[in-house]
Amino acid sequence: MMDLAQGVLAHDTRACARVLRIVDDRLPGYAEVLKTLFPSTGRAFVVGVTGNPGAGKSTLTDRLIQEYRARDAKIGVIAVDPSSPYSGGAILGDRIRMQRHATDPKVFIRSVATRGHLGGLSRSARDMVRVLDAWGADVILVETVGVGQDELEVTRTAHTTLVVMAPGMGDDVQALKAGIMESADVFAVNKADRDGADSTVRDVELMIALGKDTMIKMGKAKGHVVHSETAGLGGAPDANEEIWTPPIFRCVATRGEGVKELVLGLDRHRAWLAGTEAGRARRTERLAEEVREALREALIDAAAHDLRDEMRAAVRDVAEKRVDPYTASEQLVARFRGR
Amino acid sequence: MMDLAQGVLAHDTRACARVLRIVDDRLPGYAEVLKTLFPSTGRAFVVGVTGNPGAGKSTLTDRLIQEYRARDAKIGVIAVDPSSPYSGGAILGDRIRMQRHATDPKVFIRSVATRGHLGGLSRSARDMVRVLDAWGADVILVETVGVGQDELEVTRTAHTTLVVMAPGMGDDVQALKAGIMESADVFAVNKADRDGADSTVRDVELMIALGKDTMIKMGKAKGHVVHSETAGLGGAPDANEEIWTPPIFRCVATRGEGVKELVLGLDRHRAWLAGTEAGRARRTERLAEEVREALREALIDAAAHDLRDEMRAAVRDVAEKRVDPYTASEQLVARFRGR
Repeated sequence: MMDLAQGVLAHDTRACARVLRIVDDRLPGYAEVLKTLFPSTGRAFVVGVTGNPGAGKSTLTDRLIQEYRARDAKIGVIAVDPSSPYSGGAILGDRIRMQRHATDPKVFIRSVATRGHLGGLSRSARDMVRVLDAWGADVILVETVGVGQDELEVTRTAHTTLVVMAPGMGDDVQALKAGIMESADVFAVNKADRDGADSTVRDVELMIALGKDTMIKMGKAKGHVVHSETAGLGGAPDANEEIWTPPIFRCVATRGEGVKELVLGLDRHRAWLAGTEAGRARRTERLAEEVREALREALIDAAAHDLRDEMRAAVRDVAEKRVDPYTASEQLVARFRGR
Repeated sequence: MMDLAQGVLAHDTRACARVLRIVDDRLPGYAEVLKTLFPSTGRAFVVGVTGNPGAGKSTLTDRLIQEYRARDAKIGVIAVDPSSPYSGGAILGDRIRMQRHATDPKVFIRSVATRGHLGGLSRSARDMVRVLDAWGADVILVETVGVGQDELEVTRTAHTTLVVMAPGMGDDVQALKAGIMESADVFAVNKADRDGADSTVRDVELMIALGKDTMIKMGKAKGHVVHSETAGLGGAPDANEEIWTPPIFRCVATRGEGVKELVLGLDRHRAWLAGTEAGRARRTERLAEEVREALREALIDAAAHDLRDEMRAAVRDVAEKRVDPYTASEQLVARFRGR
């Protein structure tokens, strides 16, 4: 197992593929591998690509790969696929297009399926990002299928979130506005040669203006959202010039138009993250989120393992109304803590 | 606080409203109130209403209220609204229609917003179902806005999940098939007077047939899915006649057509849950899920409270690469357990 980790650190693609599988399936020893890789991570730029189905995310991701490859960057791609626990199947669709890069030794494309349990998907994605980072990827693209809660969480594992939109999807945009506003750093209005592109751009501009307004009013400028649990960690100033306003790029991904400009926009956000107090505070906040998430999962795993019998007894007691579920869970926590 | 709980048990509507708010906001004492109410719950029939936006869920819910009221049943409605943590706003739209029942003392309608944290929404919905149950509701309708992961989890707090579809939403149906198949007990094809209704019904029939086939192949007939953590609890037999096949009802909710038949279908599923081994096993499994979820949340709350300073230190250490996040979370768990 440690040979595999060393292989990843030596930038071996085969070792990387095997380790990704081990991490995704959480096979025995996966945590040790991640611990070994961790010190060699933190170099890659991680871009989340999200947006409504049909907006052209996969085609655009394909073009982003091409553009970054033109800079001779090494690329990792994580394609998040929702799949059924019954069928184990995955929606691939347009993603087949991306496969043309699969023979390029400097491009690594891996799918990750939706986990059945809470938080599992973003954890898996985050761990896989680490592996690709240690393998030497300069840029890692994390593409999600939709914009559900799960996917929005996945984008939070990225440094920069690119939200892809397309004309004529107005209603969906409305419905998903809130979640998107929170996570978007850069917007791409794809299919910009179609009717309605101007109106989509205007909608996005309005959304950004409204969102910024609300955030300023609440003293929560993007980038220095102060989370209760990490207040004081960031020390972010209130200087308005530090607020990141998401830029909007018009693209026609099928023809590769506007992609160069889009990548320059992503560069700019990367520089903002590194170069401003607000950007650095956001990175710290994301890290804090990760530690919280890892702790949550470690706690749940340990409890599920150690309290197996007690859980069964508790379910029986609740079913027979000998105890209520709230008291039962308190008792289980006390038991877990050995009290 | 306990006076309020007694008020709910005495079927007082004002007390119910105040307790719902306390539970939704998790104000101090909310757990004690829920513990007090718990022994008086378990009587209500809980129906989850889900489906794609635009399928007509709210209009159908409005008709279901009307139909159950014609039986003189007391009704609780929980409308799950996704909302932004920035705006605190909620999408209401068609739900305004339902409000015509708001003046009926035997109908209680309450919105619940999407929580910012994992699992929070289904927990809130479940707790609110308990309150309405203790208040004396015969039927509780839990309506979700969309069919994302969050909403699917909410439907698992219901006894019976009604999935509402409409003609001409074919693509979405495809994309969401997996999640819907797992949770659907009864289908309503709404707007059945429109073109394409026959084809929607056929699509649903095919989905059911495929799903059933897959489930039988995997030895996982619906209703007695044996979860690893509760295996042996249910003791469900493999008899195929116990498998519930979701019926499909054609409705035109705007005119109230097909609603009576739909309610009879819901009755049938309720009888299946109560009258078969498989149905009872499913109820036990849902209860086990709830205990697991309550334990998860209690663990996370306790850890967030007790490990506040240690968490901050861990984030700093991870940021400075003195420790990896995996080891850090293991150390936090050990600390939590006093080891």
